[in-house]
Amino acid sequence: MPDVAVIGASMTQFGQREAWIRDLLAEAGQQCLDDAGVESSEVEHLYVSNMASGEFEGQTGVPNALAHDLAAIPAYTQRVDQTSSSGGAGIYAAWQSVASGASEMTLLVGGEKMTHRTTGEATDIIASLTHPVEYKQGVTLPSFAGLAARLYLDRFDAPRESLAKVAVKNHANGVRNPHAQFRKEIDVETAMEAPMVADPLRLYDFCPITDGSAALLFCPAEVARSYADEYAVVSGVGGATDTHVVHERVDPTTMGGVVESGRQAYEMAGMSPDDIDVAELHDMFTILEFLQMEGLDFAPKGEAWKEIEAGTTTIDGERPINTSGGLKSKGHPLGASGVAQGYEIYKQIVDDAGSRQVDADVGLACNVGGFGNCVTTVIMEGRQ
Amino acid sequence: MPDVAVIGASMTQFGQREAWIRDLLAEAGQQCLDDAGVESSEVEHLYVSNMASGEFEGQTGVPNALAHDLAAIPAYTQRVDQTSSSGGAGIYAAWQSVASGASEMTLLVGGEKMTHRTTGEATDIIASLTHPVEYKQGVTLPSFAGLAARLYLDRFDAPRESLAKVAVKNHANGVRNPHAQFRKEIDVETAMEAPMVADPLRLYDFCPITDGSAALLFCPAEVARSYADEYAVVSGVGGATDTHVVHERVDPTTMGGVVESGRQAYEMAGMSPDDIDVAELHDMFTILEFLQMEGLDFAPKGEAWKEIEAGTTTIDGERPINTSGGLKSKGHPLGASGVAQGYEIYKQIVDDAGSRQVDADVGLACNVGGFGNCVTTVIMEGRQ
Repeated sequence: MPDVAVIGASMTQFGQREAWIRDLLAEAGQQCLDDAGVESSEVEHLYVSNMASGEFEGQTGVPNALAHDLAAIPAYTQRVDQTSSSGGAGIYAAWQSVASGASEMTLLVGGEKMTHRTTGEATDIIASLTHPVEYKQGVTLPSFAGLAARLYLDRFDAPRESLAKVAVKNHANGVRNPHAQFRKEIDVETAMEAPMVADPLRLYDFCPITDGSAALLFCPAEVARSYADEYAVVSGVGGATDTHVVHERVDPTTMGGVVESGRQAYEMAGMSPDDIDVAELHDMFTILEFLQMEGLDFAPKGEAWKEIEAGTTTIDGERPINTSGGLKSKGHPLGASGVAQGYEIYKQIVDDAGSRQVDADVGLACNVGGFGNCVTTVIMEGRQ
Repeated sequence: MPDVAVIGASMTQFGQREAWIRDLLAEAGQQCLDDAGVESSEVEHLYVSNMASGEFEGQTGVPNALAHDLAAIPAYTQRVDQTSSSGGAGIYAAWQSVASGASEMTLLVGGEKMTHRTTGEATDIIASLTHPVEYKQGVTLPSFAGLAARLYLDRFDAPRESLAKVAVKNHANGVRNPHAQFRKEIDVETAMEAPMVADPLRLYDFCPITDGSAALLFCPAEVARSYADEYAVVSGVGGATDTHVVHERVDPTTMGGVVESGRQAYEMAGMSPDDIDVAELHDMFTILEFLQMEGLDFAPKGEAWKEIEAGTTTIDGERPINTSGGLKSKGHPLGASGVAQGYEIYKQIVDDAGSRQVDADVGLACNVGGFGNCVTTVIMEGRQ
């Protein structure tokens, strides 16, 4: 089984874009090929991470459209959907395509076009991923986040401000990211006094609705050097589900899919949490950053909030988390987000992260679908 | 890279079903596990081939629902969409998951629920896979089929009756398939006089709108014997695209994706067309059976129609095609069809095809997305 390398990465401007899903995918895809100096005719497999182009835009078959737009025909193409973790699932699919020997050059492009819909429409499309029993009772993902946050704060005696500090940190990082949707610092007071959305969570505890796309290019590690002086290797990858019905979880503050996918990735990489220098976690809601830190053993159960209080996860902390600005300020175009997490980790470990650069040889990205219904975790390390 | 085996298969009744997509997937998934004597807790990866559950039913996240319904959590799960070839793409994804070492037990379930929508609504959902330029001009897949059939008949001096004979053959086979939507023989006269749909194609040249699901279970060949006395091995698999805009094809009677995916599958298997004893081809429209036979080198260019005239593709012919009844009489629940093709080939080569049984050691399935926009081809052979 060949080691799998990442030799190129790109992301478009995230935000409100005057472009359709096809335009966004083609933009990121071409930039990624250019970044690696690879011709589209060299692409053998082309995966598109996208949750809902049919529902958002009435357009399906976008992988074929992308193969056309990039002049990559006859490359094999397929859509990877795992709702909000479609991007991470795409990384897993792309890794499998190279590791199995099926492809020696795999382009992964993730994207979503959402902002032409109202927030209500977009929330409803996303909520269709939940169990019908929950969906028909009006439960949406933000409401789950509110319930989980309340339970966490109460059980672990955590201050409400600790969640606000996650938003403050990630907004501060986003200012340094030219592709981020929001490049605006906020302070704890602003976050604490923002409009209530799902008690106790307020506006700044939530990521926005976003258009955008991101891409990664994979090939066998043994040929990576012929394309790039510095590149990344996928050291570990894993994926797992948790209950589809959230109320069936024994402990809603433990994300079983994070724990299991992280365990697989650590085992494959032969690494422990101590080996991770930088991480991108799926902060669709601030509370999720804590739950993932604990699920990945970055902090003991119930103690992740102490890390934000101690400042260890800031961009100049011991283990920076969401240097990209996270979904919180960068935005969350569903199918793009996991790929954009990979983009950030890749840029950090090949020392190309600009003003966001931290000292990192090994990075981890954790992408969460639904409310932890499905999770993928990937660990990459730099090679030169 | 381990050889990949298929150790179980199932399909539900195809047709108009009083069930939702979740019910159909769970029915086929559980039957497949039972067929192989494997517990759901042994499943490591679970792939769902489905084009449009969101568009048809307002329900997304069905892979998570299936992991729940089969009690397969924490198995990793993901949706595979490649429009009408989602099933074949699922076979490719499942093969990659085992061949890469990511999973030692992968369940693939394909399904679609369509009949609760009107034919117009369903046609419109399917047509959303075409290029927007074509889609906005009102072009649907049946109209492409009419144009291609007219060109084929004219260029190769083929009799119109040869297309009718494809329908007659596949309907005759479907009578022997207890899972088929239509179990009704037709004659050439009936086909030739049926209502016109897309000149020169008439009603019986088209597959129906269908509900249904099918499943296959994959594991490394080296452990297959511990589950089954007779099993199949995936000898070859390939996938490729053709132009997304159909009118950009130099020759619309050549299906480039069929040619290229077939070439890959033959090369990997170390086989030639002469080695194939039985085949399932994607007869969404009768003309496609000819175009695939030629693309796969079962017949020279422009001469596939002579095979149906000579009777070589009937169930007691030299190389039977669509012993299952094909999409034509079995039905075409989009995401299920490619998996159901695999089901038929598996059953034939492990000698479990009941009254449809032919003498076959090696079989091939070709699944077509769009109008040949994306194609997968798989070759399986029996082992005992």
